Amino acid sequence: MTEPDVASSDATNIGLQIRRDGDEYVLNGKKWFSSGALSQRCKVLVVMGKTNPDASAHLQQSMIVVPKDAPGVRIGRVPHVFGYVDPGGHPEIIYEDVRVPVDHLLGEEGGGFAISQARLGPGRIHHCMRAIGVAERALEYMVRRALERTTFGSSVAHKGLIQDWIAESRIEIDMHREYVLRTAHLMDTVGNKAAATEISGIKVAVPNMALKVIDRAIQVHGAAGVTQFVPLAEMYAHMRTLRIADGPDEVHKMTIARREIRKYAPDFRMQGPASPSGEPQVFMRP
Amino acid sequence: MTEPDVASSDATNIGLQIRRDGDEYVLNGKKWFSSGALSQRCKVLVVMGKTNPDASAHLQQSMIVVPKDAPGVRIGRVPHVFGYVDPGGHPEIIYEDVRVPVDHLLGEEGGGFAISQARLGPGRIHHCMRAIGVAERALEYMVRRALERTTFGSSVAHKGLIQDWIAESRIEIDMHREYVLRTAHLMDTVGNKAAATEISGIKVAVPNMALKVIDRAIQVHGAAGVTQFVPLAEMYAHMRTLRIADGPDEVHKMTIARREIRKYAPDFRMQGPASPSGEPQVFMRP
Amino acid sequence: MTEPDVASSDATNIGLQIRRDGDEYVLNGKKWFSSGALSQRCKVLVVMGKTNPDASAHLQQSMIVVPKDAPGVRIGRVPHVFGYVDPGGHPEIIYEDVRVPVDHLLGEEGGGFAISQARLGPGRIHHCMRAIGVAERALEYMVRRALERTTFGSSVAHKGLIQDWIAESRIEIDMHREYVLRTAHLMDTVGNKAAATEISGIKVAVPNMALKVIDRAIQVHGAAGVTQFVPLAEMYAHMRTLRIADGPDEVHKMTIARREIRKYAPDFRMQGPASPSGEPQVFMRP
Amino acid sequence: MTEPDVASSDATNIGLQIRRDGDEYVLNGKKWFSSGALSQRCKVLVVMGKTNPDASAHLQQSMIVVPKDAPGVRIGRVPHVFGYVDPGGHPEIIYEDVRVPVDHLLGEEGGGFAISQARLGPGRIHHCMRAIGVAERALEYMVRRALERTTFGSSVAHKGLIQDWIAESRIEIDMHREYVLRTAHLMDTVGNKAAATEISGIKVAVPNMALKVIDRAIQVHGAAGVTQFVPLAEMYAHMRTLRIADGPDEVHKMTIARREIRKYAPDFRMQGPASPSGEPQVFMRP
Repeated sequence: MTEPDVASSDATNIGLQIRRDGDEYVLNGKKWFSSGALSQRCKVLVVMGKTNPDASAHLQQSMIVVPKDAPGVRIGRVPHVFGYVDPGGHPEIIYEDVRVPVDHLLGEEGGGFAISQARLGPGRIHHCMRAIGVAERALEYMVRRALERTTFGSSVAHKGLIQDWIAESRIEIDMHREYVLRTAHLMDTVGNKAAATEISGIKVAVPNMALKVIDRAIQVHGAAGVTQFVPLAEMYAHMRTLRIADGPDEVHKMTIARREIRKYAPDFRMQGPASPSGEPQVFMRP
Repeated sequence: MTEPDVASSDATNIGLQIRRDGDEYVLNGKKWFSSGALSQRCKVLVVMGKTNPDASAHLQQSMIVVPKDAPGVRIGRVPHVFGYVDPGGHPEIIYEDVRVPVDHLLGEEGGGFAISQARLGPGRIHHCMRAIGVAERALEYMVRRALERTTFGSSVAHKGLIQDWIAESRIEIDMHREYVLRTAHLMDTVGNKAAATEISGIKVAVPNMALKVIDRAIQVHGAAGVTQFVPLAEMYAHMRTLRIADGPDEVHKMTIARREIRKYAPDFRMQGPASPSGEPQVFMRP
Repeated sequence: MTEPDVASSDATNIGLQIRRDGDEYVLNGKKWFSSGALSQRCKVLVVMGKTNPDASAHLQQSMIVVPKDAPGVRIGRVPHVFGYVDPGGHPEIIYEDVRVPVDHLLGEEGGGFAISQARLGPGRIHHCMRAIGVAERALEYMVRRALERTTFGSSVAHKGLIQDWIAESRIEIDMHREYVLRTAHLMDTVGNKAAATEISGIKVAVPNMALKVIDRAIQVHGAAGVTQFVPLAEMYAHMRTLRIADGPDEVHKMTIARREIRKYAPDFRMQGPASPSGEPQVFMRP
Repeated sequence: MTEPDVASSDATNIGLQIRRDGDEYVLNGKKWFSSGALSQRCKVLVVMGKTNPDASAHLQQSMIVVPKDAPGVRIGRVPHVFGYVDPGGHPEIIYEDVRVPVDHLLGEEGGGFAISQARLGPGRIHHCMRAIGVAERALEYMVRRALERTTFGSSVAHKGLIQDWIAESRIEIDMHREYVLRTAHLMDTVGNKAAATEISGIKVAVPNMALKVIDRAIQVHGAAGVTQFVPLAEMYAHMRTLRIADGPDEVHKMTIARREIRKYAPDFRMQGPASPSGEPQVFMRP
């Protein structure tokens, strides 16, 4: 879904064109952060583009399956994440007059936005669950290191400030875990749409919390903390991407705010009537 | 329990003496933040003092019931909280050679610390539950006011920064509510002792969260926010005391840190061997 | 300037009418936070109102001198500030068909906005200078109290977390003092208009910093910190108003952002073309 | 100076031995974060070790010049920094029975701590000056990107929350610049020793501020922000090391707190009398 040239959290910004030509669709455009696409095991690409640019904001997009070896598909730049290069990569992929049979379309024309939403809710909570685990692991690293090192006459674990970090981390992890569990329970019982505030809430809150815990763990490790000899810096870099992927924090918070405001003003609109892209949606409502 | 002249979060600091003399106990000392004691309906005072100053740290204290009109009981200073004066007050009470029959002792000599713990766990969660409600109310005030006021061409509710505050507040309230509910569940199912980390955790986290939400609501109200015409400033003042009452944040976090560190170093001690007051306990372990 | 019924940081919101009638102006409207107006020594009121509601955004307002005992001037509600009642008060004042001679107008019709700006720049830095002093005083209270109290075997001043608060406070105070001094130097050498970013910057930064320092000092004092027996809670309440008075933080930051963005996009406008109130100004540009 | 096996901010922890043997010193031990040592142009290593392990805390260390090609000098592990590999590297270097003539000692035996201090004050302010520049550059990136991208009907630069980040960044950069300039002025006029609080203060404050600004700039860039296509993630990684290098934040704050507390209690000691390593010094007092 993500494109290098536009802010992709707004689905109306999508620039890749999918044009029907007889029994085929023809794709032209660019994507990046196509995670895993450099892997040998990756054979097909699921591409979001615009089939219906004149339709209303959330009916313009379609999703289509493209064989990675189709003519016109070309790997572009390979972004690092901080200095890390993942095995499968997150490459840029250029689509130039790529032709695929019409039966490669997922669902119907204009159904791409709805499809994305069906995937993104569960995707987000899965990231959050893993982030809780990452934070727990970082806290264990923090405590173990604090017990090993001694400065100015006592172990680092005896320093009041470090104890405060440990306690704050425990509180924050436990609290966020409950919030994730609550959200999972809502998704199971009332569905993704009714749990939209909570899904956005954990999406924003959990990675930010994990970053704080990891950052403290790095600091307790001193110079080692930023190196490859403990996993903390790499955890940090990965976790940092989660504040951007699947809708940046700020867009999720806009959708939460809108729902909160509408409790008291049901007709409240986020933008003026002339907004070309409709209300912010962050690809979520099923 | 609280005394004006010492840091009362450390139970070994308590200065009020309870000395046995025949069939009576004789009390000498000072307390304050004896909440509600100015009310006509208050007839007895439950006083924590030292009956056994030479016993080990948590067996020195006893609790005793003192009639408010006993000779030697005197109301001292009446503290305000910020500029507010509660009806029942939080007065200082001076005990000067106050005599009460021995059967007024609660439980046994040296059992005061244990009694305090039986009350404080439930007391803390009750404060947190109410704080969640206060934060919800502040958020409603925030949103309603943001909808009413207009600046620079749009309602305050249309400002992106204010929307961010609203969303942050919703996320924080929901997350803390789950943490409180989890703690209540643990208290019901495994008991206060096993839930000690969570009780301390909510005790620290919830009032701090509520203060943030209330502060944002004040800001959205402009000058009105600090006045008596909306309840926000008074909410703030009351909530601010919860970071101090029943053990300040910092002491609770010390106990959380100790438990976390001991997962990896079971014999870890917070202080050196010479510490006169034992490990920090914040009046909690049953 | 401040009115209870509108967000007064936007000068176009001002509701008090000043209508010419022969040799007199007739005032109708309400103000509040007219600080000091309850004092016996207060004899005249300087009132901002609209003489030219159809003029462009910053030429609608005028300032006029009104004798406090003029017929039609009436004291309304008297706001508290976090429960505190200042001697001179910050009363609401109702103006009902109040008549004053035309020569009581300050400057010319439509010049009220410009007059307010001439005062507010210096007014803001004066508040900031005092806030630095308040923060210094709070830090001294914090350190002295930390030295006096003992918990769990050592003085509070020996706790690593409290030391961290002391150091953070010293750093923050010193840094903000330099920022204020720099701003004063700019006001003296290049003038208020060229120093507008810095004046708004200190207006936002310094009270927020002082609040943090005072809040830490309160916490170190335990229960005493929120009472009248140390000046900290009252300092806090007063300092909290400075985030609202003379333009709330958020409006000042809007003006800073606009200047920063215009370095790269000189024609950037904060609002759409239809904005009725012009660009945000927070009563500042001379 | 930094060693992989101990917390090197405490100079008494240093493990590398420098033993005199006739006309030579014999070195045994390990260092890392020997920045630049992988460069061809690096010919000599300046090594801090213990010549006098039984002397008082700050007279145990000496500095000595070691040719990189001396027998027994061996490059060990090469740490990355958040995945980044600098050209000159920050390698581990193992010293095994390395022999150098006695005249390679810098100054006198036991003078190493004092030498380190003469370098570290100026070194720290130089890092801070560069960090101010980095933050300015990140802010420019943030604004330019915000102007380029459009979401939900307006440029990102029109979003109130992003404007708030821009304003906060401008305020923070300007404030920290003044603090650095003040510190430079003190170093020039009263010397490093008298400016010790300010040197530690900027050392703590400036990198933390720059990290905040860079982090906001990353967020405004979306996915691009974490890649090599804009310099922000690499800036972040480098800046993050400055919270650790030349004494971690926490140790600097301890020294600031000590000085602040001693204004009111001149004999205040940070640790108990049995502390083997003396008061925390962070290699600073000249």
